[in-house]
Parts: sequence; structure tokens; C-alpha cells
Amino acid sequence: MTHQFCPGYITAPFAGLAGDYPGDDVYPAKDFRTEWGPIFHRGRLDGSAWVLVLGQDPATHETITRRILVGEAGQRVQGLLARLGIATGYVMVNTFLYSVFGQGGGTRHAADEQIAQYRNRWLDALLLGSQVTAVITLGTLAKTGYATWAKTQPAAAAALHLAAVKHPTYPESASASGATTLAKATATLLADWNDHLPALREHVQAEEPTPLRLYADHWQPGDLAPIPEADLPAGCPGWWRSLDAWAARTGADAQTKRATITAAVPAGARTWPPLSP
Amino acid sequence: MTHQFCPGYITAPFAGLAGDYPGDDVYPAKDFRTEWGPIFHRGRLDGSAWVLVLGQDPATHETITRRILVGEAGQRVQGLLARLGIATGYVMVNTFLYSVFGQGGGTRHAADEQIAQYRNRWLDALLLGSQVTAVITLGTLAKTGYATWAKTQPAAAAALHLAAVKHPTYPESASASGATTLAKATATLLADWNDHLPALREHVQAEEPTPLRLYADHWQPGDLAPIPEADLPAGCPGWWRSLDAWAARTGADAQTKRATITAAVPAGARTWPPLSP
Repeated sequence: MTHQFCPGYITAPFAGLAGDYPGDDVYPAKDFRTEWGPIFHRGRLDGSAWVLVLGQDPATHETITRRILVGEAGQRVQGLLARLGIATGYVMVNTFLYSVFGQGGGTRHAADEQIAQYRNRWLDALLLGSQVTAVITLGTLAKTGYATWAKTQPAAAAALHLAAVKHPTYPESASASGATTLAKATATLLADWNDHLPALREHVQAEEPTPLRLYADHWQPGDLAPIPEADLPAGCPGWWRSLDAWAARTGADAQTKRATITAAVPAGARTWPPLSP
Repeated sequence: MTHQFCPGYITAPFAGLAGDYPGDDVYPAKDFRTEWGPIFHRGRLDGSAWVLVLGQDPATHETITRRILVGEAGQRVQGLLARLGIATGYVMVNTFLYSVFGQGGGTRHAADEQIAQYRNRWLDALLLGSQVTAVITLGTLAKTGYATWAKTQPAAAAALHLAAVKHPTYPESASASGATTLAKATATLLADWNDHLPALREHVQAEEPTPLRLYADHWQPGDLAPIPEADLPAGCPGWWRSLDAWAARTGADAQTKRATITAAVPAGARTWPPLSP
């Protein structure tokens, strides 16, 4: 086999979970982009994961690839996993099945019971009786989501190492308000990730011996890692996993922008003979 | 389970076929949109198909849904299958794995041996020792592709009923040159499909008794049928299967247009509270 791909939602309980997801009766369309459908996971569902990542919500690239954490945030996380010696033995799910729309949408629904019920079914499936030894939560909403699960499974949670790290796009969100700069917020993120690295490495079964390497105070070459081919569905183009941004919400007004996603082959992947206008 | 979905490429030989597909060494990027990845099939891979449809090549909507024949052409075919009493017992593959680019690209590669080799592996998997009794080819390239396979498996082919019908978008392509009108070409297509209906119905095991109903000389309400939920991957939005056109190639020049697909939620599926600009 020359190409690897994600087999998807085949075995119990995942086949059932992928067929039985909450819609906009549970996720109000005012605060969530339910119109693009739920996006469930990325990574191993076959019991071979050593670490679980709980993200926040899917973004634009994820809406096309139908797997979570494949854009910039996902590539930063992939790089973090590499520093644990983990190349393939992970599984990722999100706090929310649908992309959060607008300011505060996620926070408003952080405690919603029906949202938690479905999320907990995934966490039960991935954490109870599995070989996972550590959980990485990305940002405060994921931390809250995990704590909500942990209350329902205190024994299982007590046996797991928790690294509640800052969200990989914290630098962009923190600096958007003007309260800090992108550079300062990036340094804060990377210091936070550095703080968590040693204990995480102690609690995660590395796939290969990997010396501890801390982040600098800014992104350096190699800090982001591309998404493995085995994580996307069969036949997806290679550039869907690349470090280039290739999907965007487009439209001249708010209504159109919510309705529209444009996917464009990045310049480096335009391998066809050039066309004249 | 409240939602059905296509499980994808799980069992042999389909898991192997979905991992081992030809790239632009076999499909030249000048004539095929290899940059968007191969798109393999739609429908049943579990042996429950009674009829096989061989289409031509994937188009724009198919590139996003990652299943073939979901746009206008697919919905016309879905309506044709309904007239055979077939709602779910079908499987569809294409002559070409990648979308044909430009005029004559398909014809130039109709006899390519390596393209045929991979296509024949799919047809072997779906037609040898299966319960399929009839094959519908859409257009001349599919007819040629099927004949190429039939030469390699004469005994199996002799036992199958072949309906080589005009391609569902024949009206649009025939009238584009100005040699005929859309209305005349539509009448020609539907007369052709009517010609094939009685023999097809004789050779296909209907899932439910369905009286013969011929097409008029123009499209009528109900002639197109939406794509079943079970045909798309898990979590895909419902409007991806709708009768609305929702994906388009966009861009101001030829180079950008080849690189870009825009997906937009159709007006009827914009269920969120309206947003002001």
C-alpha cells in the first residue's frame, strides 16, 4: 500500500457515535456553525493511542478535511507531540463538535449538559480501559470539558496525567485585543508548553527515544509538524496536510461569509502546466 | 443510530485499492485535476449492490464530498435507479479517478493501459462473484472503459446486462457547441434512457415493486433524486446531498480557477439567525 489513510468510524462504539450526534437542538446555530456538520476526531481509534488531546472546536480547514486539528493549531500540536516522542500514537477530540461562531459562543455553552453528555461518551470510549496515560487539554474550555468528564469517572481520571496547556492559537487570540503583542503572547504560550513538557514526557510512553528539547521564546523552524497521511480520509490531496493555509471563509458580508468556504491549492502544489488567462 | 453514513474503504480489496491508486505518473496533470486527489466511488461496497454504474469522472461537488456522482449528474442517475426500483442496492465507480481538465482530455486517455489496469481492479472486485446483474455505463468514455474490462473477463461480462446510456449531462455538453438546443438534447437524453429502461428493469432485482414509468421529453419534478445519507462520509452536512448546486470553481483567471473551489451553504440551508453586514 503506497498511501495510508484514516479508516474512519468503523467499530463500536465509534460507528455508533458518528451516527448519533447532537444537532442544533443541542448546539444552537446562533453560537455554533452547525450548518457544516459535526467533525469528530483525528488520530487512532484502534486502541493504539498513548495520549489524548482535547481541543476546542473545529475551524475552516477541518471543515473540508472532516478531521480536527489539521490547520495551524493542529500543526503546532503535532509538533508538541513530536517532543514527547509521539508520531502516531495519539487521538484527538474536541470540546465542541461544531465550530464556535462569534465572540463568547464557547464560554456560554461550557457547562451545557447535553453537549457534555455526548463529549463524555467519546472520552469514555477513548479513556476507559485504554492504554492512554496522559491527556493534553488545549485552552480553558477544553480544561473545563475534561474536568466535567473527570467528575463522572473519578477513578479513571485519577490514573491519568493531565497537562492543561494554553491553546495553540493563544498568541493570536490574546494579541487580537491589543492587550499584548503577538510576540509576547507567543513567548507566553511556549513558556507554558515548556513548563508542561517534562511531566508529560514522564507520563507518556514515547514511540521512540526522543531527547527533551524545549521551545525558544518564538516559533522556530520545525516547531510545527505536518499532519500524517494516515490521519485523513482516503484519497485526500497531500496539500490538505501541508503547513500552508489553503482554506478561508470568504464573502463580502457577514451572512455570505458564514455561508462560504474557499479552498485553494497552495502555490507550491500547483503542479500542472501553467495556464494562461 | 439517527444518521447513516458511508463506512468507506475498510475491507479487502477496497482498503488496498484506496491506498494504492495511480497518481500523475499515470494521469497527466495537463489533462486531469490530480491536485485534488482521487475520488473512488459511491454506494455499496459490502456486496449488496444489484447494479453497477460506471460514470465518467468526478466534478466539483464530488471533490468536496469525496464521493462520486453527487452533483446534478449524480442526482439524475439516482432518479434513473429509482425507476428500476433501486434505492440503495447500487455501487458507482468512474472511468477516471480524477476530474478531466480541458477539452478532449478524457478522449486522449480512453485507451491508457495503466488507467485501465487500476479501473479493472475495481471492476473485478465489484463484478466477479457478486450479485450484480446489470451495468449502466454513462457516456461513450464509460462505455469504452467497460468494454476494456469485458475483454479481460469475457465470461463474467457475458452474464451481465449492459445498458450503455447517454451521459446524464449530455444535454448540457451537446448544446454547449450550439449544434443543438438544450431542450432538444434533453429530449434526446430522456428518449435514450427510456429505450434502455424496459430491458434494464428485466435484468435488475428491484428492491421494491416499482411500476414502469417513462420520462417525458423534458425534466419533470421528481426526475432527479437526492443522494442518500448513507452514501456520504460520517458527519457530512445534509445540504451536501441536496438538489441545490453549492460548489463551484472560482477565480479571475484560468490558473486561479483551476486552483480554487468555493463551497457555499445554499440559501435554504442557512438556518442560523440572519446576520447583518
